[in-house]
Amino acid sequence: MPVATQGTVKALTPRQVEETGSQIVLSNTYHLMLRPGAERVASLGGLHRLMAWDHPILTDSGGFQVASLASRRRVEDGGVTFRSHIDGSLHELTPERAVAIQELLGSDIAMVLDECVLYPASQERAREAAARSLRWARSSLEAHRRPDQALYGIVQGGVFTDLRRDNARALVELGFDGYGIGGLAVGEPTELTREMTELTVEELPPDRPRYLMGSGTPFDIVEAVARGVDLFDCVLPTRNARNGTLFTSNGKLAIKNARFTDDSSPIDPDCSCYTCRHFSRAYVRHLFMAREMTAATLNTIHNLTFYQGLVARLRKAILEDRFPSERRELVDRLSGAST
Amino acid sequence: MPVATQGTVKALTPRQVEETGSQIVLSNTYHLMLRPGAERVASLGGLHRLMAWDHPILTDSGGFQVASLASRRRVEDGGVTFRSHIDGSLHELTPERAVAIQELLGSDIAMVLDECVLYPASQERAREAAARSLRWARSSLEAHRRPDQALYGIVQGGVFTDLRRDNARALVELGFDGYGIGGLAVGEPTELTREMTELTVEELPPDRPRYLMGSGTPFDIVEAVARGVDLFDCVLPTRNARNGTLFTSNGKLAIKNARFTDDSSPIDPDCSCYTCRHFSRAYVRHLFMAREMTAATLNTIHNLTFYQGLVARLRKAILEDRFPSERRELVDRLSGAST
Repeated sequence: MPVATQGTVKALTPRQVEETGSQIVLSNTYHLMLRPGAERVASLGGLHRLMAWDHPILTDSGGFQVASLASRRRVEDGGVTFRSHIDGSLHELTPERAVAIQELLGSDIAMVLDECVLYPASQERAREAAARSLRWARSSLEAHRRPDQALYGIVQGGVFTDLRRDNARALVELGFDGYGIGGLAVGEPTELTREMTELTVEELPPDRPRYLMGSGTPFDIVEAVARGVDLFDCVLPTRNARNGTLFTSNGKLAIKNARFTDDSSPIDPDCSCYTCRHFSRAYVRHLFMAREMTAATLNTIHNLTFYQGLVARLRKAILEDRFPSERRELVDRLSGAST
Repeated sequence: MPVATQGTVKALTPRQVEETGSQIVLSNTYHLMLRPGAERVASLGGLHRLMAWDHPILTDSGGFQVASLASRRRVEDGGVTFRSHIDGSLHELTPERAVAIQELLGSDIAMVLDECVLYPASQERAREAAARSLRWARSSLEAHRRPDQALYGIVQGGVFTDLRRDNARALVELGFDGYGIGGLAVGEPTELTREMTELTVEELPPDRPRYLMGSGTPFDIVEAVARGVDLFDCVLPTRNARNGTLFTSNGKLAIKNARFTDDSSPIDPDCSCYTCRHFSRAYVRHLFMAREMTAATLNTIHNLTFYQGLVARLRKAILEDRFPSERRELVDRLSGAST
């Protein structure tokens, strides 16, 4: 899922997002509740209509942004109070309010409010947060009303095997439409992310989508799919695009590098996105150096197309029962030297 | 002509520019000679190919930007030396070099190097610049080689009737493919712009395009067309778009205005651009307030579509022999109160 934090994938129109092969986008409840406001979005016809996106939208619960962006945050059993990073205004997010906001936004998939602890955290701290997240998950389920909206639970438990297993089992017992794997890719070593992903997935029902939240690099995605993950969101393709870092079938490429000054080839000769069909590295580099917004647009189109191409390839390999060989080939390529 | 200063209409892809109804864009020789460089553009296949724009391009000569952007400028009979506003490097622009650069860029219409004097200027100063511009026009004509590129002369003479008439006549005697009307819209009162435009056009051959350089507001365009002008370029629609000022059939609109916060109507109900077909004022305002680049894209699409719609309307009225009534109606609307 490309990230449409404030109701738009940065630098793209929805039509351009569609053309990258994206079928669903993620929007951030935290940002939208502060601006333009959930009630306002609802009165304007809901988020789909507001942003003219006729495909699925997943909204997060706001919990992670509250933890990473808001100031003077205070978590209690009932919920979390915080001050807006925009104007310092005071807000409260409870499990019930997070559900209500997402129902107002009208996303297709809503996430329960959870408490995400960053790495490293003590086992005691992780246990407390996992327990609170579980209570909040129950409250969310009870508060949820919209029959046209799925609600996903989120597994917490830090990097502690037993905590994570217990949390996953208890969550599955409550019964959600899908499951987020939370509290990973928050600073821990990659090996630990994979181990925790694997053991969490083992506890989740195979007929429900499993969503690894906030991950990751192309390599991370291949490895998570290998462990049974179905759904991802990450700012990496869009943020890197704006910073001039481009993903290609032969590794990453920093477009500002002087060796692209006269390079008439496309960003990725294997790519058939609008950018690669029409423009050279030399041109994209020129726009980037000249600080033209069009550079962000063209780069974002390319990076999202690359990510969607990657997961499309993985999907196809799974359906054709040849995932292991596809994984080996991709890992060889993706871990190769940068272009 | 939308302005594509550095080889892109800011915030748009060429496909989006096409969809605004634009048939030709203007690019700036001054910017492109400094970055990425004319020889580089040529070796990359020319400007059309570089920016993937398969329609006409007009390039200016660089003279105006040298006068307004470069530092330590020194004008002599042979040409002008200046320092780049990007890195302070020393450059020279002669009539011959300006032609050579534009031939390297491969634009469809090239402009002669001229010396533009800003308002107010003494008659002596205006006379000197007009005489020098005329000599440069002759040198440009002699230097010009590409048979697939038109070369336009530029009428100077400030706001002095005799100077302008004499300059126009001498230029027409040299014989160009079209004529720019330069040195106007540089600070003088609107009435004077119109008067000078009118008397300049009177001296120009009716079968050659007349191009009023760097103008103007929608109202200015209607009034210039009434005086016989065929071609315009202006940063107003694109720059205003990025600043949140939108043109509508009922006047201008500042999208950041709080009264649009809950406004579900399109920017201009009479407009059928991509932006107006899909998005509300409330959404565009939200993106603008949240500093999303997508706001610049959507606003630019709208403003350029508005400008192209205006000139399409004027063209049609001329062809149907009802320009005077169309002019009256447009002037009434455009001079009305802002929305």
